[in-house]
Amino acid sequence: MSSVRTPDPNPGWLDEDDLREARRRLPMVYVQAVPVQLDPLGCVTDVGLLLQPNETGELERSLVSGRVLYRETIRAALLRHLEKDLGPLAMPQLPASTVPFSVTEYFPHPSETGYTDDRQHAVALNYVVAVRGECSPRADALQLSWLTPEEVLGADVQAEFTGGRGRLVEQALAHVGWGR
Amino acid sequence: MSSVRTPDPNPGWLDEDDLREARRRLPMVYVQAVPVQLDPLGCVTDVGLLLQPNETGELERSLVSGRVLYRETIRAALLRHLEKDLGPLAMPQLPASTVPFSVTEYFPHPSETGYTDDRQHAVALNYVVAVRGECSPRADALQLSWLTPEEVLGADVQAEFTGGRGRLVEQALAHVGWGR
Amino acid sequence: MSSVRTPDPNPGWLDEDDLREARRRLPMVYVQAVPVQLDPLGCVTDVGLLLQPNETGELERSLVSGRVLYRETIRAALLRHLEKDLGPLAMPQLPASTVPFSVTEYFPHPSETGYTDDRQHAVALNYVVAVRGECSPRADALQLSWLTPEEVLGADVQAEFTGGRGRLVEQALAHVGWGR
Amino acid sequence: MSSVRTPDPNPGWLDEDDLREARRRLPMVYVQAVPVQLDPLGCVTDVGLLLQPNETGELERSLVSGRVLYRETIRAALLRHLEKDLGPLAMPQLPASTVPFSVTEYFPHPSETGYTDDRQHAVALNYVVAVRGECSPRADALQLSWLTPEEVLGADVQAEFTGGRGRLVEQALAHVGWGR
Repeated sequence: MSSVRTPDPNPGWLDEDDLREARRRLPMVYVQAVPVQLDPLGCVTDVGLLLQPNETGELERSLVSGRVLYRETIRAALLRHLEKDLGPLAMPQLPASTVPFSVTEYFPHPSETGYTDDRQHAVALNYVVAVRGECSPRADALQLSWLTPEEVLGADVQAEFTGGRGRLVEQALAHVGWGR
Repeated sequence: MSSVRTPDPNPGWLDEDDLREARRRLPMVYVQAVPVQLDPLGCVTDVGLLLQPNETGELERSLVSGRVLYRETIRAALLRHLEKDLGPLAMPQLPASTVPFSVTEYFPHPSETGYTDDRQHAVALNYVVAVRGECSPRADALQLSWLTPEEVLGADVQAEFTGGRGRLVEQALAHVGWGR
Repeated sequence: MSSVRTPDPNPGWLDEDDLREARRRLPMVYVQAVPVQLDPLGCVTDVGLLLQPNETGELERSLVSGRVLYRETIRAALLRHLEKDLGPLAMPQLPASTVPFSVTEYFPHPSETGYTDDRQHAVALNYVVAVRGECSPRADALQLSWLTPEEVLGADVQAEFTGGRGRLVEQALAHVGWGR
Repeated sequence: MSSVRTPDPNPGWLDEDDLREARRRLPMVYVQAVPVQLDPLGCVTDVGLLLQPNETGELERSLVSGRVLYRETIRAALLRHLEKDLGPLAMPQLPASTVPFSVTEYFPHPSETGYTDDRQHAVALNYVVAVRGECSPRADALQLSWLTPEEVLGADVQAEFTGGRGRLVEQALAHVGWGR
């Protein structure tokens, strides 16, 4: 009897098992975005942080972040992850250049870069993305908070990041002129 | 009899004579913008070029460009010149960072940088600025044309720039991923 | 009977077959370097281009380029490929920042980015790297030529690049202030 | 009786009085450098900070910093100030690109940017510059200290900066991948 499965629409992509295996063998390409709101002069007034449960159920601050798929451009991956995390009406303004403000290298712990990801070696290209619309975070993100740069750089909020991601937001804010 | 002149609202600024003199003694700070239109993925679809008469009445392609005044921020100067050249409804999206894509050094001719400005030594910080509104160029710019990146990089349009400004637009397009 | 094979020193890495397979399923992380010589003021005087036979034996201009391995940092990959292509005495001066001057996305032909690589989808981080020592290209690169920026931008040399790599060198030169 | 004064070798430059006056009327162009030592992979191992007496005789941490003169290129100004502050044998490796890692706008106090300079409005282009030789700070800098990035980011050292310069070094370190 022949198979009645729907043909895989993207035969080039990996199933979950193969992907788990590949993550132990190859660096993965990621994009990460720090969503911001800008005033008319382009100054950052607010930074959007997600609050998500991690694998052990604890709440953690996180950024928009996700994998670049086979044959997907960086821009398309960035837009896909922004829409997934901030909702379809967020109106993210993708940057004109794909040059990131920083590149983060996540390694399985312990890491020589200070950035860790237990699952994999990931090379992430990081962007500051202005958002002009209404954000409605998806179901599995408990909350999207807009904080001022001062709040984000404060010790309280910095303590809610893991894997070095607090430092990443610091770099993003340094890039746009902020510092402690 | 005492003077009845309105007091100078900005006593720190220079009058025309002093400014002409200062231009022969000090480098001037400039901002320049390459206005672009972006598709939803952030790719440049169109580049805005001004067509202006130069001092001898000849028409020349030019960019949004102007001086940073005493006590004016780079962002305020950029917005002021964009609104002056593109009109009040252009809705320019100022970049989150003031790091320019390139720095141009104009010297009185002959110049070791290849960029010339007969009037002065100017250090210009250059930005690519996305424009989302309706542009209505001011009176003394005869025309604002939106050209595709391919058209801008073509030999015909490049020949209509002077002072090295064609190379500047090339750099802007290289920065956003374009090239010949 | 127990196996007498030497244990795989890098069990996380892929063998040739698995790598070929992964290249059809996942974007690969690459680093690319444009080797340059600088004068004391930091101006590019010469650009190093490799001349290599491609798969059909034809000679092609190429850049220093190679894959980032599992658990290898970008900096380590960059140094490894520079030493492999330019020899052990090249003394490349790795940049203080890992922010690339551009990111190139190679796709199997035909490509929406204009950059093609028949074997794979690769995301390449590109750097300009100053070289201060003596270069001795490895056996399978027939030649390393140091050309002036003007020569590199000339139509003759540009015609010897494939896969969009001529545009990449153009972007590198635009980044350091050169243009046609 | 005719003057026997040596003719001014640079008639375009300003004398002290005129310069003081200009500083109250026009933004000045500055370059600033954060001197660093790099390991073979390009990672910053040490940051060079100057310790100088300020106008009231108090000691302050400072960076290599100085004005761009009329008809002087950014690169020439950068090299001149590096040699003046670090000595003739410092062997600074000027960057291939003049794109700064950040632009700092100093205003007379109080300042909307957070960076202050009582004397003037200055627009400073900031660079991280690798130094490979022997540094011997000039007479009026009491000391050049090489500190680790961790030391520089510590509260003790940060307290020894004024005018916002501590934040500038933080931005420089964020640019090369460091953070608190």
